Amino acid sequence: MSAQTIAVVGGTGHLGAAIGWRLARTGRQVIIGSRQADAAEAKAAELGHGLRGMSNAAAAAAADLVIVTVPFAAQEATLADIRPHVAGKIVVDTTVPLVPPKVMRVQLPPEGSAAVRAAMLLGAEAIVVSAFHNVAAHKLAQDVDVGCDVLVFGDDKTARGAVVALADAMGLRGLHAGALANSAAAEAMTSILIFMNKTYKVDGAGIRVTGELIPPQE
Amino acid sequence: MSAQTIAVVGGTGHLGAAIGWRLARTGRQVIIGSRQADAAEAKAAELGHGLRGMSNAAAAAAADLVIVTVPFAAQEATLADIRPHVAGKIVVDTTVPLVPPKVMRVQLPPEGSAAVRAAMLLGAEAIVVSAFHNVAAHKLAQDVDVGCDVLVFGDDKTARGAVVALADAMGLRGLHAGALANSAAAEAMTSILIFMNKTYKVDGAGIRVTGELIPPQE
Repeated sequence: MSAQTIAVVGGTGHLGAAIGWRLARTGRQVIIGSRQADAAEAKAAELGHGLRGMSNAAAAAAADLVIVTVPFAAQEATLADIRPHVAGKIVVDTTVPLVPPKVMRVQLPPEGSAAVRAAMLLGAEAIVVSAFHNVAAHKLAQDVDVGCDVLVFGDDKTARGAVVALADAMGLRGLHAGALANSAAAEAMTSILIFMNKTYKVDGAGIRVTGELIPPQE
Repeated sequence: MSAQTIAVVGGTGHLGAAIGWRLARTGRQVIIGSRQADAAEAKAAELGHGLRGMSNAAAAAAADLVIVTVPFAAQEATLADIRPHVAGKIVVDTTVPLVPPKVMRVQLPPEGSAAVRAAMLLGAEAIVVSAFHNVAAHKLAQDVDVGCDVLVFGDDKTARGAVVALADAMGLRGLHAGALANSAAAEAMTSILIFMNKTYKVDGAGIRVTGELIPPQE
């Protein structure tokens, strides 16, 4: 489960760029993917830290682990684009099923969650994990304490553990949160946090799991 | 929106008894409801603080505000039982749609959430709010810091505010969390917390919203 090279598909967006930047600073090889390779190259150059830019498909093909950071409306087309290149790889879906303009209202898709939808769209050969739903991108993009746990969902425990470790390496706290279907909880929570940001004038609300957590021995 | 008398329907269970006990300690009139009045009376006597016990229907009829704390499997029958007695009243549904034996797996109902299901079952005359999904009952039953925010959902903002205030009075932090449909987020989160309790050996994991929250001026 080594992840020498990581692609961030949709990496020119706020969340993707922030994830790419945090990961590159850990010394990992990171490729920003975008629909247009030149946009990806420009973003990679802007972010520095050895980041490279490619088309989404090329980035997915070149990587050992792929993180998908696109809006819900682009999920289907993006996953179709990378599907030929992710067999046997961990694909971390970060999609939150927001339905503008009512982004403060939970509107989970018929599949139950965007993560389960991703697994259906990618087919059985990809190892789908979901994470990073609740992290405020603008905080992640800075060298600050993000103040938000990363709930990690997936049916493959080993793959889930690899993503928990990635989140930890990024200076966050990754937590095993169970089956991929459980992703509904974190995806729905994002609408709550957007509501909190507005109602309580918060600059990027997050969530933390409370209690004394004892990490399992792997 | 005064709530002089509060009924806790299903109040002989762990969560209901803990909520009743916390509320009674604030000086409010609280009635424990149960399918059997004598069981409710016995639990009320055990809890002290002036609590009374009645049948669920009688408790709902006698109260200004009704809190429903029953397992998902009992939600439909319980709400049918109290429906004739809650017109114009705030009904706080706490139901988490757990489907044993897989309680660590998110399994939201076809209505999207137990709260929306409650509103459908109670009809338009009840003012449905949902809350208390993530609080560990055994912590709530003790004079300790529960370490968990109470996300409060409802389409009627004033009613939601009344329940936020109740949670605050109970020594918790109540937070407006948006529309009743948003309840899916907290309901789903309960399965995650049960998973955390097992995986990380936590004695009652909870969640807290992070960030600097500025309460809205009512």
